[in-house]
Amino acid sequence: MTDKSPPSVNLAALMDANQYYSKTFDQAELKPAPTKHFAILTCMDARMDPYKFAGLNDGEAHIIRNAGGRATDDAIRSLVISHKFLGTLEWFVIHHTNCGMTLVTDEAIGDLLEHDLETAVHNGECWVNPERQQSENTKPGSSLGKNIEWHTFTDLRESVLNDMNLIRNHELVPNHIKIHGFIFDVKSGRLSAVED
Amino acid sequence: MTDKSPPSVNLAALMDANQYYSKTFDQAELKPAPTKHFAILTCMDARMDPYKFAGLNDGEAHIIRNAGGRATDDAIRSLVISHKFLGTLEWFVIHHTNCGMTLVTDEAIGDLLEHDLETAVHNGECWVNPERQQSENTKPGSSLGKNIEWHTFTDLRESVLNDMNLIRNHELVPNHIKIHGFIFDVKSGRLSAVED
Repeated sequence: MTDKSPPSVNLAALMDANQYYSKTFDQAELKPAPTKHFAILTCMDARMDPYKFAGLNDGEAHIIRNAGGRATDDAIRSLVISHKFLGTLEWFVIHHTNCGMTLVTDEAIGDLLEHDLETAVHNGECWVNPERQQSENTKPGSSLGKNIEWHTFTDLRESVLNDMNLIRNHELVPNHIKIHGFIFDVKSGRLSAVED
Repeated sequence: MTDKSPPSVNLAALMDANQYYSKTFDQAELKPAPTKHFAILTCMDARMDPYKFAGLNDGEAHIIRNAGGRATDDAIRSLVISHKFLGTLEWFVIHHTNCGMTLVTDEAIGDLLEHDLETAVHNGECWVNPERQQSENTKPGSSLGKNIEWHTFTDLRESVLNDMNLIRNHELVPNHIKIHGFIFDVKSGRLSAVED
């Protein structure tokens, strides 16, 4: 790091935790191909741990995560790799309640980033950029965000179905791949199936 | 599902595991913003569980995962959302040893998918498409894969540094975000820092 900020507490904690983890590590024999032959595509949300909510052990499944758990080109790149080289045959698309991507629009993201890059606050009605002092270490806002597809959405069932269809109809996805859709409820920990 | 294949064993097991999980679920009070204010970008690989190797609890960090843990446009979309709306200030880029994305090239992926979409096998020297009988339920190969950037790489240290730089120099990423790079060793469970 070239800045003058204090050493990172997170970095030290992560290194400590990893040292502890590696001392009792017993997974050296695991192979790259997931033993349960499936992949999960879900949101990056901090409240969701796919290992726990899906009852997974190390080595069993690929986990792909992004903002929203959306079937972006990059998520589909990962799924195609997962099948073509590592033999997965079944994919789970899992979005969740109270997702940040349902609480803002692509247009609002573009506008907020154009004004500044720092963390916005929600005033009860919408996201706003708080008043801030400019510092030397602050980049200005950028209009680049207006040209990015942020993959926000409003209806959870629709977003899951939309993404299942995008994957299903992709030219590089074999017909026989099983695709399941679910909504994870962050208040109950429960998965509900989304059916066509 | 519209096909005639038997019901999925994975689906039943996942639903059972989730029912058990939700019965003892006690995370309903967690907020969307990660309490440790950081995000991890890493590979979808089945052998890596970021909660375990980084010592994380629910609610503490965003986890973004794709094939390779690469700083694709979509990963950067997720990181920008993570900072702009959910206040993360520190990001970890973590690639790993024995990554499938180092064992094939973009060119080979395009060629293999052009021939067929089914899982390839490694013959000790390279990936090949095994002889297969065409079935009704099989799509033909597609040349679309030749136009996709698959984000394969050869040198782990270089890939981590490259991705840290891509993120660091992105127009929507504030200068003050701390970016750390690591390599996870799948044989020891150990993280090694990658420094500039």
